[in-house]
Amino acid sequence: MELEQLCKEVLERIKPSPAERERLESLTKKLLARVNRACKKLGVPARGVLVGSAARGTWLRFERDIDIFILFPEEVPREELERRGLEVAREVMGERGKEQYAEHPYLSAELEGFQVDLVPCYDIEDPSKIKSAVDRTPHHNRYIRSRLTPELAEQVLLLKQFMHGVGIYGAELRVRGFSGYLCELLTLYHGSFLGVIGSAKGWRPGVVVDLEGAYPDPSEARGLFRGEPLVVIDPVDSNRNAAAAVSMQNFAIFVRACQDFLRKPSPRFFFPRLPPLWGPRRLEEELKRRGTTLLCISFTPPKVVPDILYPQLRKAERTLRSKLERAGFGVLRSDVWSNGFAALLLELSVGRLPRVEPRLGPPISVGVGGFVDKHREKKIAGPFVDESGRLRFEVERKLRTAKQVVKLTLLEGHGLGKHVAESISQGHTIYQGRQILKLCRDEGFARFLTEYLTRCLPWYRG
Amino acid sequence: MELEQLCKEVLERIKPSPAERERLESLTKKLLARVNRACKKLGVPARGVLVGSAARGTWLRFERDIDIFILFPEEVPREELERRGLEVAREVMGERGKEQYAEHPYLSAELEGFQVDLVPCYDIEDPSKIKSAVDRTPHHNRYIRSRLTPELAEQVLLLKQFMHGVGIYGAELRVRGFSGYLCELLTLYHGSFLGVIGSAKGWRPGVVVDLEGAYPDPSEARGLFRGEPLVVIDPVDSNRNAAAAVSMQNFAIFVRACQDFLRKPSPRFFFPRLPPLWGPRRLEEELKRRGTTLLCISFTPPKVVPDILYPQLRKAERTLRSKLERAGFGVLRSDVWSNGFAALLLELSVGRLPRVEPRLGPPISVGVGGFVDKHREKKIAGPFVDESGRLRFEVERKLRTAKQVVKLTLLEGHGLGKHVAESISQGHTIYQGRQILKLCRDEGFARFLTEYLTRCLPWYRG
Repeated sequence: MELEQLCKEVLERIKPSPAERERLESLTKKLLARVNRACKKLGVPARGVLVGSAARGTWLRFERDIDIFILFPEEVPREELERRGLEVAREVMGERGKEQYAEHPYLSAELEGFQVDLVPCYDIEDPSKIKSAVDRTPHHNRYIRSRLTPELAEQVLLLKQFMHGVGIYGAELRVRGFSGYLCELLTLYHGSFLGVIGSAKGWRPGVVVDLEGAYPDPSEARGLFRGEPLVVIDPVDSNRNAAAAVSMQNFAIFVRACQDFLRKPSPRFFFPRLPPLWGPRRLEEELKRRGTTLLCISFTPPKVVPDILYPQLRKAERTLRSKLERAGFGVLRSDVWSNGFAALLLELSVGRLPRVEPRLGPPISVGVGGFVDKHREKKIAGPFVDESGRLRFEVERKLRTAKQVVKLTLLEGHGLGKHVAESISQGHTIYQGRQILKLCRDEGFARFLTEYLTRCLPWYRG
Repeated sequence: MELEQLCKEVLERIKPSPAERERLESLTKKLLARVNRACKKLGVPARGVLVGSAARGTWLRFERDIDIFILFPEEVPREELERRGLEVAREVMGERGKEQYAEHPYLSAELEGFQVDLVPCYDIEDPSKIKSAVDRTPHHNRYIRSRLTPELAEQVLLLKQFMHGVGIYGAELRVRGFSGYLCELLTLYHGSFLGVIGSAKGWRPGVVVDLEGAYPDPSEARGLFRGEPLVVIDPVDSNRNAAAAVSMQNFAIFVRACQDFLRKPSPRFFFPRLPPLWGPRRLEEELKRRGTTLLCISFTPPKVVPDILYPQLRKAERTLRSKLERAGFGVLRSDVWSNGFAALLLELSVGRLPRVEPRLGPPISVGVGGFVDKHREKKIAGPFVDESGRLRFEVERKLRTAKQVVKLTLLEGHGLGKHVAESISQGHTIYQGRQILKLCRDEGFARFLTEYLTRCLPWYRG
């Protein structure tokens, strides 16, 4: 399909209609007025400001977020900002407002079909002197609004929908992908959606995008953000990487998506087929067909926000993987999930190893007294010298099954993340093989397991 | 035990008695006379010379070898040397002489309880101009005889018995250990048995022993014999390493033995306990206890000398190991054996792997069209991107059992060694697990299997 034509057709599907736009505008106007009225009524020296994609005309039809920030002057002490900011928000939202917590507490509610956040923050002139990350948002807002023409805003919509379609949209730690702001910056820099795609198809880890030329020498920026696959210097704060959330995995997915899209453009990159949802019989068949050993640890997730929960789940996953690998169990793949309950999924080539386990001694230049004394009593064979000249024992393996390794790791509780470790210590179940199907009574988990078993880049789904 | 006292006691047990010495001397005298008489009778311009340990007074009580070389002048053409040399040997040994083959053909027979070899070779003045390796032996003989005092000869006996006791005596390719000549050279260099042991306890791979100072710069010698763990410059030919046969494994065994012997001297280093011989029930128990997957390939060995057979058996062993490892099967240990039949033994952690197998794509900087096209059809899952950013498929494993991998490798027949490959192609059997016990009707194999399962450095045997 011709690229320009494809983009036009996609845009028609994702751009909000005039009616939708009007509904959003009338609601935001109403909310801003209510915020300002509440400030006046409560004697709070603050004012409401619309930020985010709604403020910039870069919201997708399916995005229904309205972010209103309540700006306080710098002099207000933090404790007062938090308390009075919440009072204002409560006055606007009433009982419907649910308290959330980022760096400050804020209120959130669903109003007229939109997800509305009322977030108190400081109005600070110099963005390098902000007191918390939310204070940066109004600066982002100003930067984008002053540069984004309506034509460019449409290009942003295409890029955001592309990110969404290939499964990497969102900077939250559950996703570790590309934020809306990052999409806006990339579009500004490259001038169009296809400009971004055409450049990104050749990206290597460590690429630097520097809109304001803050680093005349890009290797300086690379050094500053070493290890981050994508470096996009934040125009309002050159010490910040606006793409810091993007994981290596999602960076690579984006680059591959750009390569594949340009080779064979298709609406699938924007609107992919969803993974199927298999019933228990089909799932059981597939588990059997793979012939691997699946283990799933389920437990009640700690009551923390996803940005705290997911890094801990991934930390627990990494710890379990490395303990299993060190015990001789090759981990084929693993994943984490949380909704009604939390799940750590581990897939092993083999779930049981033989009793005998080799123990390699020190190289020839080192004495072996300690090594021999340590193993001599409980040996199965040895000491002998192998072909490479190293001393060896064969001893009795302590943990013969992967399940035993997992059990012990969870019991010890190290390297699982603070809250997750606590939750696991309060109770957990280890399911193996087809026992895991019991968890599939939860449809969300069944979806997760089906997606895991049929894992595929979205645009390749048949 | 006090070292000097220990050595004295050992010497008493290993040194031939005067009566034994007399028997050897009278037999050699008789044989030499017969060789010279045969030469005269057949008009052959050659003469007999006693070489080897019998000639130097360095033979151990249990060694009953007499090597007599039939020396021809340089001018005799090779074809004539081979033909007429055999005629002389046949005249001496009659029908009892069995034809053997090293670089020249020679005759071998058991006479009066001794293993006698009659070997034709050239009498060449300059050892760097010899025509084949056997021509070097008379030079070795002269070198050692002119330097070895009776006291030093006793020290050689101790070192040879020590090598024998720790299981590394003999330069033949079945053993890859220390030859008698090498023991003589080491003793000459270090002045005594304990001198050798005290030096060797600190050896590192690449150590150089240069009796005649042929290489003022030892790094030159190291460079010349790179990769050989022990370099002992042959005094009669400085381009030759007299320790070339010593494998890394046996080098390390010797160094460890020296360390352990000096820490805790014991007759065990000279007279170790033999490995046990287990019956089928005990063997079966042990196979079960280990919990590994044992495979044994048995076939009729090719009719070649051990120095040709063993390198080929080891080559086949290496090829099978690497094929198994590449197919995902971890090889715990392996060994080869040959007597009435030949056997390749392979021990695996796991004999069966799951159907699903990961396939890693190229790094991000490389296009993936070919990789995707190749795997897309027969995939189980994928393509997806893993945490490291690499593209992956999960495909159906072709060979799910180690036995299938072995079967295919033997069928293809590459990398097994010429004669062994031929023998295997004419017929072989693959035994798995307790089926291997069938082979134990052969006591030699049962001994081999018991030793394999109880493998231990000889001086550690309980």
